[in-house]
Amino acid sequence: MNDGLPGDLTLRHPRGETALFVGRGAFERGRPHLGAWLSGRQAFLVSSEAVLAHHRPVCAEIEKLCADLVVLPVPDGESAKSLAVAESVWRQMLRAEARRDSLLLGLGGGSVGDLTGFVAATFLRGIEMALLPTSLLAQVDAAIGGKAAIDLPAAKNAVGAFWHPRWVVADLDWLGSLPERELRAGLAEVVKIAAAADAPLFERLERDLPACLAGDLERLDATVRSAAAVKVRIVEADPDEADRRRLLNLGHTLAHAIETASEYRGLRHGEAVAYGLLFATRLARARGADERFGDRLAALVSALAPPPLPTLSVEALQDAMRRDKKARREGVVWVLPMRVGEIELVADLDPAMLRAELEAFLSAPWEGFSRAADGVR
Amino acid sequence: MNDGLPGDLTLRHPRGETALFVGRGAFERGRPHLGAWLSGRQAFLVSSEAVLAHHRPVCAEIEKLCADLVVLPVPDGESAKSLAVAESVWRQMLRAEARRDSLLLGLGGGSVGDLTGFVAATFLRGIEMALLPTSLLAQVDAAIGGKAAIDLPAAKNAVGAFWHPRWVVADLDWLGSLPERELRAGLAEVVKIAAAADAPLFERLERDLPACLAGDLERLDATVRSAAAVKVRIVEADPDEADRRRLLNLGHTLAHAIETASEYRGLRHGEAVAYGLLFATRLARARGADERFGDRLAALVSALAPPPLPTLSVEALQDAMRRDKKARREGVVWVLPMRVGEIELVADLDPAMLRAELEAFLSAPWEGFSRAADGVR
Repeated sequence: MNDGLPGDLTLRHPRGETALFVGRGAFERGRPHLGAWLSGRQAFLVSSEAVLAHHRPVCAEIEKLCADLVVLPVPDGESAKSLAVAESVWRQMLRAEARRDSLLLGLGGGSVGDLTGFVAATFLRGIEMALLPTSLLAQVDAAIGGKAAIDLPAAKNAVGAFWHPRWVVADLDWLGSLPERELRAGLAEVVKIAAAADAPLFERLERDLPACLAGDLERLDATVRSAAAVKVRIVEADPDEADRRRLLNLGHTLAHAIETASEYRGLRHGEAVAYGLLFATRLARARGADERFGDRLAALVSALAPPPLPTLSVEALQDAMRRDKKARREGVVWVLPMRVGEIELVADLDPAMLRAELEAFLSAPWEGFSRAADGVR
Repeated sequence: MNDGLPGDLTLRHPRGETALFVGRGAFERGRPHLGAWLSGRQAFLVSSEAVLAHHRPVCAEIEKLCADLVVLPVPDGESAKSLAVAESVWRQMLRAEARRDSLLLGLGGGSVGDLTGFVAATFLRGIEMALLPTSLLAQVDAAIGGKAAIDLPAAKNAVGAFWHPRWVVADLDWLGSLPERELRAGLAEVVKIAAAADAPLFERLERDLPACLAGDLERLDATVRSAAAVKVRIVEADPDEADRRRLLNLGHTLAHAIETASEYRGLRHGEAVAYGLLFATRLARARGADERFGDRLAALVSALAPPPLPTLSVEALQDAMRRDKKARREGVVWVLPMRVGEIELVADLDPAMLRAELEAFLSAPWEGFSRAADGVR
């Protein structure tokens, strides 16, 4: 599907290119290329103990490919993305005499990828890296596009860089170890990508989402490959998120606020995104978006069955939004889904209207949507 | 000297361009451009208390140019370049509700510039910045080229990024406040640039260095402008320091080792570079470099009159060099000055020879050079 190039997909960015191997058998296809890259090099593998325990065979294969592999375990989930963890990784790399031509690999979910990217971007002013995402969310979204960051207590992703991996190996067969909750959270990002940018993927989800959630690997493979290809296309068009790439923040303004306000102890990222999509749909509808599209999108979110929304105040959410890095001079910019594959960026939402919508949403998130619409069959 | 473009010099880099105002009257020339850039924006000024006290009028002018200026004082010198200081700056910016379109200014010496660049590169994945270097060293070298970093205890510049300022305003008239020791240290980097890359600048130094050191502002102005222009040319040819730009590390392998081994409490950076230049000249001579050029370079270094070398062991220096980020798979790469404006990169220096040269150098750094050569008239 990517004539003459080493990956299933290629992402061209201002500093070079990323080769991506995506879907079933990705590691098999990517291994010779990873092998040539790692050959004779010192490499560092950033991962969590839980991921390492699930993916011993992959680690063993990687170890065989390089001259010297140092495994650097980091905490699971969002707590990997702290300055203290980054500092510990930098220090361990220095102790192991890492150099500019040392290589970094990140094996794990979105948090491991974000941390690995940030460390790679900054260690000795930048070294090469590969991402091996093991969560669906990371395979279809987080690992693609070079966004790397750690959190500060006051804001998620407050400190980071754009730093693209040389390789992404996103093997769907690794997801066997994935709890269903993670699968649902990952598919939330696929719904986002589809709603914001790709009508055919949206229609595919309406057809195949239940099968994907039921564990149909063949349909999940096709869905994941499509989502990755759409994401690559969006990133290539706007690598630094100056403009068009902001459409990928659909659902994320509220999602980040939910995560910050609940100190990352409530919903998973993908689950927060599910609610973020629903709320953005609600706002879009209040601004004249297609009613039926809103029902279809709500039906997809409903099929993802996110756990109940935690109890949060309007004030706490608004406070978190104001500090979100997507805020600009003009205030919070909302990404609103207007029609299938089409969004609008809106900076001038009336504060009173926003507050009223937020209050209504917090008390009854699904109200007003025909969840059993003919969207998901 | 830069037809139709806003600066005295323009540096084109992969992500855009930097406009530089250099020499006497630079702030006057740059102010309208800074004004247009800052207009209506929230800006943060990173500087040290000592620099702020010396440059109150400049700060007042900058404050007038923007909508909202927050001054963030940081420690003086190398101690500004710590992770703790960077974290404090990030947090203060978040508290002040900084956004992606907030602007950062660094007013101070090389350390303030390095810290400011690192914070700008990483805050919300990168915001725009301007550098206003107030030391000669920063005006001719550190502020040009986008290298930004902080130190970890085990290695100087261990964590950083390439992040170019939008503007560099390097006003020579600000140097009135500069102790002579800083002036000498800054001219060490000019000697480096000249020896490594530009014969006409080298000859200018042989003619004008004593006058520059004696406070002849006119000759210093011409020297600084030439040095900045040479540096811009080198950076443009190799922005990521993959190859040619490494010539600017002339003298820095030993210099960083001296600084690390003495925990930054011995010589200033420019002074350490002076000794580094001398030692590199010694190694170059041992590999057949032009004898007379060695004497001429030693004479320039001698004119800089660095303070005595601190007492350091060969072992401590070699240990620091091994961890230096310039080390690659092939080991430490030495930049050796062979002829005026010409260097060689050497990775295979015989360890026994290096050790012997280092021992001899530590006991008698100037031995073997005709310091009173006809170099400096």
